[in-house]
Amino acid sequence: MSDIVFQEVAPRDGLQIEPVWVPTDAKVRLIDALSHLGFTRIEAGSFVSPKAIPALRDAEEVFGRIERVRGVKYVALVPNLRGADRALAAKADELNLVMSASEMHNRANMNMSGEDSFAAFQQIAQAAGGTGVSLNGTIATAFGCPFEGKVDEDRVVDLVKRYRALGATGITLADTTGMANPLQVERLVGKVLWHVPHEALTLHFHDTRGLGLANVLAAYRAGARRFDASLGGLGGCPFAPGASGNICTEDAVAMAEEMGMATGIDMPALIDLSRTLPGLLGHDVPGQVMKAGRVSDLHPIPERLRA
Amino acid sequence: MSDIVFQEVAPRDGLQIEPVWVPTDAKVRLIDALSHLGFTRIEAGSFVSPKAIPALRDAEEVFGRIERVRGVKYVALVPNLRGADRALAAKADELNLVMSASEMHNRANMNMSGEDSFAAFQQIAQAAGGTGVSLNGTIATAFGCPFEGKVDEDRVVDLVKRYRALGATGITLADTTGMANPLQVERLVGKVLWHVPHEALTLHFHDTRGLGLANVLAAYRAGARRFDASLGGLGGCPFAPGASGNICTEDAVAMAEEMGMATGIDMPALIDLSRTLPGLLGHDVPGQVMKAGRVSDLHPIPERLRA
Repeated sequence: MSDIVFQEVAPRDGLQIEPVWVPTDAKVRLIDALSHLGFTRIEAGSFVSPKAIPALRDAEEVFGRIERVRGVKYVALVPNLRGADRALAAKADELNLVMSASEMHNRANMNMSGEDSFAAFQQIAQAAGGTGVSLNGTIATAFGCPFEGKVDEDRVVDLVKRYRALGATGITLADTTGMANPLQVERLVGKVLWHVPHEALTLHFHDTRGLGLANVLAAYRAGARRFDASLGGLGGCPFAPGASGNICTEDAVAMAEEMGMATGIDMPALIDLSRTLPGLLGHDVPGQVMKAGRVSDLHPIPERLRA
Repeated sequence: MSDIVFQEVAPRDGLQIEPVWVPTDAKVRLIDALSHLGFTRIEAGSFVSPKAIPALRDAEEVFGRIERVRGVKYVALVPNLRGADRALAAKADELNLVMSASEMHNRANMNMSGEDSFAAFQQIAQAAGGTGVSLNGTIATAFGCPFEGKVDEDRVVDLVKRYRALGATGITLADTTGMANPLQVERLVGKVLWHVPHEALTLHFHDTRGLGLANVLAAYRAGARRFDASLGGLGGCPFAPGASGNICTEDAVAMAEEMGMATGIDMPALIDLSRTLPGLLGHDVPGQVMKAGRVSDLHPIPERLRA
């Protein structure tokens, strides 16, 4: 049993804004490698319009070819009923629904109103009913909207309740553009945990302003135990060229392990895998531990100081 | 009165490992600009051997030419009596002494044993006595040594007491190579604050493994109120090419302000100044807020969604 759970999202949230095409073979190899590192949850793809997100247009093939490792849930993000039908046909273990707490961001991101999103979720819940496939409800911009600014916390709590009412067992609070601060995180997580069991709540933080891991820690203090993270910190911020996106899995796992938490993840193999990313993508990635090594990786004593 | 104090160290710790030569004029302009942003403490240079750190070989000229803004302390790092004499002649307001908690790192970094460092500090304390120039004692590798690994916390507390006994009013605990984690930080800061007043303790964190701001927050929770930070996150890690060094001032100030703390710092002007660094140095710097903007910098609503 882990003290803290990391859901790996690089294959979905990391790759979705990659400008280079990552071949299906490479995606399958990446997910298969992740499956053997101790993750219990991997967001493996997104069943969205190939026009909207061409980088993930091979989701069916990816889900069809990955090894299904026992104990690992393979999650698919779906924006609407059509996506849900595709994901169910591809045998995703969980459907991740997403809408934004702010109306303007939902319209910009999902091309529909928040009410239309919930109408679609009703259809999805019906389609998934009886299949054994679980639903997770993500609330994007839960800590702030890049267009509207502050987001009402009561609105977030209300969306949590509506998601739960329609059958979503899991809830994700997403800081989509990295606007959250630790004090705010502790407060909102505390409020939401009145309505969702600890083990069903996921926090999705972006490191856009350098607060990713500080926010993980704040959420943990408030009782959250599950976190999205992306190998190598893959996935940037569409609003800010050069700024970071998702928190980096191995940096987050290293923090947890250094603090004595059991993560269940094979840290050395995780770093090895992360170090393959620059070669795969043709560019540097934001992860720090992959560059600096673990705290326990000591440096040789300089020659001149040896006895 | 600020709730949290940031000491700007870019002119010293940031520039010291820069491969490009930053002209004296540019250094003076940078420090003068920082002096008008609300900082009360600026580490403006280092009086070390020009052979050891050529990037800072113009310390005398820098200290001679900067504007001395009322309310700002201009701190100089000094490794030995010779450096202290130079710094006193250059009218530094405070001398920052440095030694490492781990013997091997002190030998590697300072070319002497810990006992020899303290013997030099005795001489420096005598030289500074009666000048009105204050002393700050920095303990490098206080949270871990890249050669020896774990550092005994009692050793750190002992060094704090010895620094205080020889007249250092300020104490800095430095995580020189970014090995600290938040749990460890809370514990050690708690122990040290039995021996140093809150307002006299500085925490110096590196973001080498992504935990810089999480550690700031942990130290703040434990009672620390003063932090070193470097504009733009300037200054890398000599052990890990590509890894971050000092925590980034504007990212740390933004975190504090977002959480409702008064910092006394002119945040918009700080970001403007940070954005001049890539031009000055010819390379990107690690700061995130300079790329992503502040949380309050909203984005225009997409054209297609406007009424």
